[in-house]
Amino acid sequence: MKISARNVFSGQVVEVKTGAVAAKVKVDIGGGNVVTSMVLANSVDDLGIEVGEEINVVIKSTEVMLSK
Amino acid sequence: MKISARNVFSGQVVEVKTGAVAAKVKVDIGGGNVVTSMVLANSVDDLGIEVGEEINVVIKSTEVMLSK
Amino acid sequence: MKISARNVFSGQVVEVKTGAVAAKVKVDIGGGNVVTSMVLANSVDDLGIEVGEEINVVIKSTEVMLSK
Amino acid sequence: MKISARNVFSGQVVEVKTGAVAAKVKVDIGGGNVVTSMVLANSVDDLGIEVGEEINVVIKSTEVMLSK
Amino acid sequence: MKISARNVFSGQVVEVKTGAVAAKVKVDIGGGNVVTSMVLANSVDDLGIEVGEEINVVIKSTEVMLSK
Amino acid sequence: MKISARNVFSGQVVEVKTGAVAAKVKVDIGGGNVVTSMVLANSVDDLGIEVGEEINVVIKSTEVMLSK
Repeated sequence: MKISARNVFSGQVVEVKTGAVAAKVKVDIGGGNVVTSMVLANSVDDLGIEVGEEINVVIKSTEVMLSK
Repeated sequence: MKISARNVFSGQVVEVKTGAVAAKVKVDIGGGNVVTSMVLANSVDDLGIEVGEEINVVIKSTEVMLSK
Repeated sequence: MKISARNVFSGQVVEVKTGAVAAKVKVDIGGGNVVTSMVLANSVDDLGIEVGEEINVVIKSTEVMLSK
Repeated sequence: MKISARNVFSGQVVEVKTGAVAAKVKVDIGGGNVVTSMVLANSVDDLGIEVGEEINVVIKSTEVMLSK
Repeated sequence: MKISARNVFSGQVVEVKTGAVAAKVKVDIGGGNVVTSMVLANSVDDLGIEVGEEINVVIKSTEVMLSK
Repeated sequence: MKISARNVFSGQVVEVKTGAVAAKVKVDIGGGNVVTSMVLANSVDDLGIEVGEEINVVIKSTEVMLSK
């Protein structure tokens, strides 16, 4: 499947924390960068997200800011 | 300055394309990952964003999706 | 590919308008609902998006508001 | 009230789940499509969102991705 | 109309700039704060947005970051 | 640090509510406007966000809608 989001990076799940509604997942995408994602808790079950698994982070370009 | 956005990655500007209102900027953050950002055109002038410059990409955790 | 975004709806492209940096794409997802998307212009080329084509719209739950 | 968000679809609330801070609400907008929204828990009280109620989902065009 | 977005502030349009697809609108919401919005160009026509007009800015809480 | 987000407003924290994963923070930015933000709970600890503190709210222009 191809997606219009310009930022699709593969990596490994390094942390999963689930709340009643929301969940936090951290993914090591290499180069010293660990990406943090907040998703709905049932996305974690639905995708079977577990520490150690390979996964992609997907980020729309309009959501990326720049700072100097 | 510290920011609540959990994802702040440093990198080098590798491409800048400006339209009437929007602009596209690509940043190499290492590990083989090049991040694409869509910002307002005057952000490029205001921050003096040029190819080759060091810059940070900033992404709120709620904007990061996961796929498998 | 499975994605954490909870909203993935299939439909048909009914309009494409491309600018220098951004592009607007409209997708009829049935039930009388036509979804409008703003993406980077090169996403249109990269995904080969044309009027009449089958496509999915993908929307993260954190981006959906409610009104009464 | 008119809003700049291009995607305003009416539907019926089919599920509400509230956590300490966030809440998940599902809305059937017809055509076989059920939209999932994550909002602040007090939005559910403030708008009096209950299963069976008529409601609108509101989505900005910049938040809609496309996939094939 | 009530909306789940927690941030609805009234103000006056002080600038409008329209491109092929996107448009930039600035709104003075008082207290020395001028809010910049990027919307689809046809939202400007559809809502009849002109300098001097009263308008509301609407921002979902998940889109607000904090910095110190 | 300069950021591409066009909307950076200073204000005072007036409320903090933390859940397992998400947190809600309210900031009075003057002019009668109190901004509500949903961030990850650990952002509150990491930035040391407390009621009464000075802080900035940061909002990307693509996340701002307009209504009349």
